[in-house]
Amino acid sequence: MKALVLNALHQPLDFTEVADPSPRPGEVVVALRAAALNRRDLFITQGLYSGIRFPCIFGSDGAGVYRGRRVVLYPALEWGDNPDFQGKNFRVLGMPDDGTLAERIRLPRANIFPMPGHLNWEQAAALPLAGLTAWRTLFSRCRLKKGEKVLITGIGGGVALTALQLAAAAGADVFVTSSSAEKIEKAVEMGAKGGANYREEGWDKRLKAETGGFDIIVDSAAGDGFALFPALCNPGARIGIYGGTLGKVNGLSMQPVFWKQISILGSTMGTLREFRAMLHFVARHEIVPIMDSVFSLSEGNAALKKMEEGSQFGKIVLRI
Amino acid sequence: MKALVLNALHQPLDFTEVADPSPRPGEVVVALRAAALNRRDLFITQGLYSGIRFPCIFGSDGAGVYRGRRVVLYPALEWGDNPDFQGKNFRVLGMPDDGTLAERIRLPRANIFPMPGHLNWEQAAALPLAGLTAWRTLFSRCRLKKGEKVLITGIGGGVALTALQLAAAAGADVFVTSSSAEKIEKAVEMGAKGGANYREEGWDKRLKAETGGFDIIVDSAAGDGFALFPALCNPGARIGIYGGTLGKVNGLSMQPVFWKQISILGSTMGTLREFRAMLHFVARHEIVPIMDSVFSLSEGNAALKKMEEGSQFGKIVLRI
Repeated sequence: MKALVLNALHQPLDFTEVADPSPRPGEVVVALRAAALNRRDLFITQGLYSGIRFPCIFGSDGAGVYRGRRVVLYPALEWGDNPDFQGKNFRVLGMPDDGTLAERIRLPRANIFPMPGHLNWEQAAALPLAGLTAWRTLFSRCRLKKGEKVLITGIGGGVALTALQLAAAAGADVFVTSSSAEKIEKAVEMGAKGGANYREEGWDKRLKAETGGFDIIVDSAAGDGFALFPALCNPGARIGIYGGTLGKVNGLSMQPVFWKQISILGSTMGTLREFRAMLHFVARHEIVPIMDSVFSLSEGNAALKKMEEGSQFGKIVLRI
Repeated sequence: MKALVLNALHQPLDFTEVADPSPRPGEVVVALRAAALNRRDLFITQGLYSGIRFPCIFGSDGAGVYRGRRVVLYPALEWGDNPDFQGKNFRVLGMPDDGTLAERIRLPRANIFPMPGHLNWEQAAALPLAGLTAWRTLFSRCRLKKGEKVLITGIGGGVALTALQLAAAAGADVFVTSSSAEKIEKAVEMGAKGGANYREEGWDKRLKAETGGFDIIVDSAAGDGFALFPALCNPGARIGIYGGTLGKVNGLSMQPVFWKQISILGSTMGTLREFRAMLHFVARHEIVPIMDSVFSLSEGNAALKKMEEGSQFGKIVLRI
């Protein structure tokens, strides 16, 4: 079969012929129709993950066919017994295990779920990792309730956009931040109540004055900007954080954190049960993942380059 | 009656004669037998609180007699309806409302609770604010479970010591940090399994190697040392923080926070229900608050000076 293979760091992916996967007991083989990229893929090519092996087929997100049924894939392996955290053997699909950027994938039978009926292949492939991460952050960790005010920072990435869709469908008032007026405008078209450009001096105070403060903030940047969040929080607020692309947090005062009883909640991926709940919610609310662009599988390196530029709004999808 | 009154900032308290309190509807008057100091009192004299009024009788902790019954006082007013956070009218006793450093106090009937039978006046007066803060942090916020490993930083203050006692009684393995070998030794005598001197280079790595990591960390210092905590955490760990005496947090990496699904949980004071649960637990386990020293009410300024020196191990109590 054809697959996109990583053979070395800082090198293009190799679009090449590899052996077909043969399932072990308890495993199935899915014929993939679409896959999607995640920032994780980019980080791996840059050597920012430990435990990298070569050669490895890339990709965590996928949708395809198993015995004539349309399925979407839970994007990880061996979460473990405790819903509060993943166990030692937990892995995300696509490193070190072979992933979804291929014509076929083998994975545990428990990883395949019926595809929500309102989605096409590309839309379904755009959902798993981003939807799961957003779901766990918003609902399991931050315990979002209807009517709460939610701030989603850095709108444009797959998780942030899915979080906007999920939170809005759950009855929250969602606001966003971005460095791009265009992305804020698009987010408002998608259902956000407003937004702020975090490059503008005083954006935080203006947004606080406009909204009255937030019950939930969802962030994946960390960095020095994180120190602004407690002041933006209402009493009892939760800050869900699932990434740290801007590096370490400096200048964080804990006074508002303890006085307002704020919770800062780290979140990564999610369980099979959370994945099922997310799919059910997406189907019930007919949520359609936002796609930035669609490439063919042979164009994998162009797709990764697009992600590296960082200007995308939505998922970068590969048609297989 | 006699009382310790604050008449101005950066001034000694005035031990003076004031008018007896007269209860309003729903209020009672308690004849106080003992009171205790908190760091909050020191901070107020230093002008570090907003909304200060003069003259005001100091003190949040007290035990005394109401209609022949021995009672201990819930140290705050008007928490509000939501157990997750205090409402806008919430106040700690002793500023701006008159407090416990007096022969008598008036306060809502709901604030008085039967004194645990195993405690004397001084011990009971040492319990309320520290016990309530430690209880909410450990049990309501961090959801301590039997058998978990707990690190309590800066052992010596009232909340930290009470947290050590409560956590140990709940079946946790408790470790402590201090800059004083003597305090660590005393903590071990009280039931801690071990400790580390945070002035020693590499204390965190040695403690991690020794213990395997922590499920709960309880801190009130914040500051740059806070950035060491995520690496000390086990997956699913909770960091409870109820103060920030060392200032802002710098250099905090969020990677271990989200990957290990860590929760950083701000906590302040607690509800009437939490106070009742704490008293019940203290009575059942016959926990006796640690007292550093006992002064008479007329020696209030010497007691505050003792607190300012910061070398105390346990509560500073005033006999009335």
